Amino acid sequence: MIVAPRPLGADATIGILGGGQLGRMLALAAARLGFKCHVLCPDPQSCAFDVVRRVTEADYTDKEALDRFANDVDVVTYEFENVPAETATFLSARRPVLPDPKILATTQDRLLEKTFVTSLGIAVAPFAAVDDLAGLEAALASVGRPAVLKTRRFGYDGKGQVTIRAGDDPAVAWAEIGEQPAILEAFVPFEREVSVVVARGLDGTVQSFDLCENEHRDHILKVTRVPAAVPAAIADTARAIAGRIAEAFGYVGVMAVEMFWVAEGGGRVLVNEIAPRVHNSGHWTQDGCTVSQFEQHIRAVAGWPLAVPVRHGRAEMLNLIGAEVHDHKAWLSVPGASVHLYGKPVVRPGRKMGHVNRVFRD
Amino acid sequence: MIVAPRPLGADATIGILGGGQLGRMLALAAARLGFKCHVLCPDPQSCAFDVVRRVTEADYTDKEALDRFANDVDVVTYEFENVPAETATFLSARRPVLPDPKILATTQDRLLEKTFVTSLGIAVAPFAAVDDLAGLEAALASVGRPAVLKTRRFGYDGKGQVTIRAGDDPAVAWAEIGEQPAILEAFVPFEREVSVVVARGLDGTVQSFDLCENEHRDHILKVTRVPAAVPAAIADTARAIAGRIAEAFGYVGVMAVEMFWVAEGGGRVLVNEIAPRVHNSGHWTQDGCTVSQFEQHIRAVAGWPLAVPVRHGRAEMLNLIGAEVHDHKAWLSVPGASVHLYGKPVVRPGRKMGHVNRVFRD
Repeated sequence: MIVAPRPLGADATIGILGGGQLGRMLALAAARLGFKCHVLCPDPQSCAFDVVRRVTEADYTDKEALDRFANDVDVVTYEFENVPAETATFLSARRPVLPDPKILATTQDRLLEKTFVTSLGIAVAPFAAVDDLAGLEAALASVGRPAVLKTRRFGYDGKGQVTIRAGDDPAVAWAEIGEQPAILEAFVPFEREVSVVVARGLDGTVQSFDLCENEHRDHILKVTRVPAAVPAAIADTARAIAGRIAEAFGYVGVMAVEMFWVAEGGGRVLVNEIAPRVHNSGHWTQDGCTVSQFEQHIRAVAGWPLAVPVRHGRAEMLNLIGAEVHDHKAWLSVPGASVHLYGKPVVRPGRKMGHVNRVFRD
Repeated sequence: MIVAPRPLGADATIGILGGGQLGRMLALAAARLGFKCHVLCPDPQSCAFDVVRRVTEADYTDKEALDRFANDVDVVTYEFENVPAETATFLSARRPVLPDPKILATTQDRLLEKTFVTSLGIAVAPFAAVDDLAGLEAALASVGRPAVLKTRRFGYDGKGQVTIRAGDDPAVAWAEIGEQPAILEAFVPFEREVSVVVARGLDGTVQSFDLCENEHRDHILKVTRVPAAVPAAIADTARAIAGRIAEAFGYVGVMAVEMFWVAEGGGRVLVNEIAPRVHNSGHWTQDGCTVSQFEQHIRAVAGWPLAVPVRHGRAEMLNLIGAEVHDHKAWLSVPGASVHLYGKPVVRPGRKMGHVNRVFRD
């Protein structure tokens, strides 16, 4: 039994699983629309706790806490893709959970995700399932080298993946990822990494933001630029792909589709990864667009109409990672720059501490 | 003894006196910059309570509560101009209070305010002090009719004022405002009501937003449009006046200066009223500008550098008053419109429930 969603009244409370910066920015966007939020997170130092009145500090598997949380909210959404399946099932029996947690089963597993995307007739890099070392040898024979071996589950920001080049010993790579179920992906000589942040409403309406291009550093997103410097036809194709995936999922909320733009041979787009949540590559929308990805997500899960996004100009988002958070001081005085800090109490290397959005009217 | 302000660290807590929509939007802007907020307000249903973790529900004269509040915050600011003087004095001995509460003594009293502005060589409509009925007769003789009789203190949204036209009995007007200390102002045949929202930083930097024009209905702001349709020289003069007032006050934070644009005789600007706080006529900045008035105020009271505001285009703000809050549904689907709802639990006639910002790139 699951509880079906319906449009919320303006006095409703939205429950958010996860208390990081995405939860925080979702709560801030919800507040603009008059909604209250209740954040559940096991971490007592959750930065999202600071911007809501009601918080639950509890583990995601704490049934008693989940029950109290569900009773206090009108709809549940989440800021991260690794919501445990049993948590989702437990909550779904009590309140609508959006986007539908069934989607997580697909996006939490790289093999299921690629298989799903491929089934829609959408291109991905050549891949093969890997369950043991023999399977890895076979996969390398079919996919070729260089290739990237990735765990099927729980990989993010470059964790759980290793590149296998000519001469590399597959056994070392297999040991490195912990001998877990994996997939091997062909290493695609792409021109740019691009992404589409797309929203789908409860009424089935789809609205995508403009295609952006992303630069990573140490496997962590560093810069997003929008619009992406790709041919218009590529941008149109990419946005259409994101819309088709959202529709195929029956998705409600905001998701991001990361893709590779491969320029050779006339140009094409390959889907790399789906993030079933608001996404770092959509942060520019807070200042560069008439509606942010966070508000668009809240509108969707509230069953309210999506906004039609209109971009203010060329935009750029720069992550402040680890000690780079101190750079915010210099950014405060740059005309057209908007500084966002997440209020995280501890600076750690690789930790996303804030970001800077810039809008250019040229 | 007062505590002198200094720049806050990013982990600081800002105390806000007043829990209405202005306090709420200040807290949301502070959260973008990573600050925590603590809101103090006597009303248990304060809509600003919903967007912060720490609240104090107490009267502004409750010394024990004020002491606890002061101990929990690094700086104190306020969302309304009628902060009791004893509250300000009590808090100032414990934490920096910005803008300096001494300014409130001037802006809380129309006679002191007009006298102060006039002392800067800035024009206001002709006025005279009125302390009794005989004084009102004398004031009418000097100022002429029509004229507006206003209580010196605690007037807002048209409360505490009455127009005296030819043939009206001054005694009736005097009774109507409760026989309180008042001023009589000449009724100026103005072309437009305009306002400047100006910020002054702890370092003395002044940044003003573009001049906007305001339309009132039943003495309550209904629409703000920016830029105001006035000659460029008038807009420059108006912004310069606002900056001079902020400097003369040694102001830290955002304030609004409401003015009349009188077109006849070559055109001039008369200062009508000063609001020592963020102001309804600055709400358009949330979506129409690279920095909002709320963030600008937070930057100022935090001792951080002010941002250089860059407007995205022509902008318009429409208040949703009383039952008009239900109109938000239609606005949600209008491209370029941003809906803001304050989460107030009870709709009352004349109550500000939300607003809509629109940005036009024409």
